[in-house]
Order: sequence, then structure tokens, then C-alpha cells
Amino acid sequence: MRFTSQTSSDGVTEQLFTLPFTFGEIPGVLWTPDGAAGPRSLILMGHGGGQHKMAPGIVARARRFAVECGFAVVAVDAPAHGDRPRSAEFDRVTAELRTRMQTGQEATPVYAEFHALLAAQSVPEWRAVVDAVQEVDHVGTGRVGYWGLSMGCGLGVPFVAAEPRVRAAVLGLNGAETSAEAAAQITVPVEFLVQWDDEKVPRGASLALFDRFASAEKTLHANPGKHVEVPMFEVDSTLRFFARHLS
Amino acid sequence: MRFTSQTSSDGVTEQLFTLPFTFGEIPGVLWTPDGAAGPRSLILMGHGGGQHKMAPGIVARARRFAVECGFAVVAVDAPAHGDRPRSAEFDRVTAELRTRMQTGQEATPVYAEFHALLAAQSVPEWRAVVDAVQEVDHVGTGRVGYWGLSMGCGLGVPFVAAEPRVRAAVLGLNGAETSAEAAAQITVPVEFLVQWDDEKVPRGASLALFDRFASAEKTLHANPGKHVEVPMFEVDSTLRFFARHLS
Repeated sequence: MRFTSQTSSDGVTEQLFTLPFTFGEIPGVLWTPDGAAGPRSLILMGHGGGQHKMAPGIVARARRFAVECGFAVVAVDAPAHGDRPRSAEFDRVTAELRTRMQTGQEATPVYAEFHALLAAQSVPEWRAVVDAVQEVDHVGTGRVGYWGLSMGCGLGVPFVAAEPRVRAAVLGLNGAETSAEAAAQITVPVEFLVQWDDEKVPRGASLALFDRFASAEKTLHANPGKHVEVPMFEVDSTLRFFARHLS
Repeated sequence: MRFTSQTSSDGVTEQLFTLPFTFGEIPGVLWTPDGAAGPRSLILMGHGGGQHKMAPGIVARARRFAVECGFAVVAVDAPAHGDRPRSAEFDRVTAELRTRMQTGQEATPVYAEFHALLAAQSVPEWRAVVDAVQEVDHVGTGRVGYWGLSMGCGLGVPFVAAEPRVRAAVLGLNGAETSAEAAAQITVPVEFLVQWDDEKVPRGASLALFDRFASAEKTLHANPGKHVEVPMFEVDSTLRFFARHLS
């Protein structure tokens, strides 16, 4: 793992890094409170489809997790996203997704294929990222949480199911079709976000995914609005959820 | 309105009162922070079926609303509950409810009849309670919120729909059958609680009631467990919801 830059503003230190791994370099960013020393809880943030590790919704939440909870936060570019090369297979599936959305055809099966394609790579990558980041002195081996909506949920569910170091997860904006089997293996506390008028994820598929989590504590928050209209007060709730389970 | 007792403990003053009204005396209780002076927001708490104004779940929440938010909180015995006389009609409907539950028959239509019977009385009673309590110096005419689950939701929905002084409501554990028309007239922010494994309220009926609220801001919180197993962290959420809308 190699840090390539470090900046600080408003109490948060932001370090860009690259991590060599099986499928090429993983570009990532680590946020910690200024002056952090010693081990702390770590939040992994999985961005949405077409976004990247520095998308505004990621950065804004990450900075709040660092400042308000003292957590370390890491985001990486998902496979074929941000600064990473795209594969012919990725281009084929995204073209199919685009066609189906433009022609009003059912896109869910293609989303499932899309998430399965990327998760085969992203699950081992996230494990390597946790290994590497927890070696950093001011991160250390504290508790781990995962945050991811939409594609960040589609890729997060199989990761959280596979990774026992993850102790709590905020997921949502995704349906059961893409990860129902993995969901049934998740037993850690889950906060799950649903947009009641989501134009991309059918309401029933969202509720079905929530239903599949085997967690004794799981809580569903549904709000009116479309896919990208999650209300800001849910960020407050996310902060408290992670603080309750990771502090 | 006549106060009949006053006690204080742990920073909260508790005053019992009775309020004469059309259908006889309404017995109630008012909680305020010790030493309260001047106007403040007021939370009205509607208890569940078979419970009363001093049920443990009411008292525990009321004391937190008073201590942590500085609110005034009032609860009254619903018609035919607590210290109030029961009517022949009430006894007939509750006997029918009991029979249906014991024999495994569909109870929803009888719940609807039960709530309609009581709401015809409780809606004007709540309006009279707000009138009277806001005359008290250390309550005054601040913002008003309503909290009620189960029967407290069944009676609360028509009240919140009818009473423009209510600015925010926490509702839940009830389905659309008993109050769908009134729900469609509610436009204030609503936090709505669903128990995912509720043995009394079908999941679909709960989701249908949430769907009916006309509020631009409404948020559904669903948690695993049976009707009475709402997790304690939802009380924290309720406090923040009321603080956001009434402070």
C-alpha cells in the first residue's frame, strides 16, 4: 500500500493511496481525524454504479464519520469505476443495461449479472483493503463497519456475508434479485434504506432483500422519493447506528 | 381542568388532572421539566388498547421527552380505558375481538369498528385537552406533536388529520383498514413504526397505511419482532424526530 498524497481541511486528513492486488492497482482514499493516533473503528464505503471513491455523497459522509465519531473511513474505486480500467465484459453488460433502460425493458436480471460480475472481484479486494489499512498506525485493528447503497449494496452484501471483521452495515437502494443468498448469511446489525418511489429498484424487491438478512437487529428506513433522493436526516441516523455498534 | 396531585422525581414534575367534557371527566397526566416556566412544545401521547395513561411505555417515553427535550407531555385515558367507564357498545366490540382472536378468525374488520367507535369520542376529547393544557402557564401555546402506536395510532390518525395544531406525529403498529381515509389528509411529518413480524397487524396493511399519508416528509422504520417488541433505540429516534420538528 502506497500513499500518494495527503491533505487536511476542517479537521479531517485525507490520504490518497494505491494498493497492488491480483486485478491491478486499487486506488483508494483514507480519511481520519486530524492528529489521529492509535487504533479506531474503520468504515468501508462502497460507492454507487457509475460513481467513484471521491463522489460527493461519499466524501460528505466520510468527513462526518471522521469528525463526529473519530472513525477512520476508506473508499476505493470499484472494479471498472473511477480511475480503473474497464473490461470488455463490463462494457458488454453496461451497454445491455443502458439499452434495457432506454427501451423500458426489465433491467433487474442485468443488474444482477452486473453486480455478480463486479462482486467476484470486489469482495477479495475489500478484504485486501481491510488488511492493508488496518496496518496503518492511526487506523489499527478496531471494529469495522460497511456502508453502501445501490451498487454499493449490491457489492456490499456478498462482502459483508463473507467478511467476519465487519460488525455492522448500512445498506439499501437495492433489491433481493442481486444478492438474496448472501443476504441470508448476514447476521450483524443492518440499517437498510429504501426509497419508497425508487424508479430503479421495485419496492417489493427492496422489502424482500431486507426480509432475507438473518440479523437479529435489522432496521428498515423507508422515505418518499426517487432512487437518489435519500433525505439528509438519514446521514444523522447512519452516524448514530455506527456509533452504537462500533464505538 | 382541575389538578388533583403533583409529584416530582428525576427532574420531571408529574401532575394528575381531570378535565370535564361532553362524555364525562377525562383523567389525564401532565409531565413537564422541573422548574419549567413559559411556553414550550407539547407532546400528546395516545396509549395502546387495554392500556392507560400511566402505562410503563407511556411514562418512560414521556419522562425522556420532558428531560431531554424540555417538552410538556400529556396523556389521557382513552374512552373506556383506565379510570373511565366502559359502555355496552365497547363491551360488545371487545368481546367480539376476543372471540375472533381465540378462534383464529380475521380480527381486522373488528379492530376497524373498535377504533371508529372510540375515535368518535377521542378526537374531540384530544382537541379539548390541547385547549385546556395550553392554558397552563408552563405549557403555553408552543408547537404540538402526537405520539401513538397500535390503538394510539388507530385513534391518532383521525385526530392528527383533524387538528391543524399538530405539527408532527409518531405513529405505527396499525394498518390501513382502520384509518386510510384520514391518513390521506395528513400532511405533517410522520415517523411510522412497523414490527416486521407483527402478529396483530398484517405487514401489507402497515405498509399500505404508510403509503396513504400525504406528508412530504414521512419515514418508515421497520424492525424484526412481534407487536410489542419495538426496540428501545426507536425511542432515541422518536426524540430526535420531535426535536427536529418541534424545537
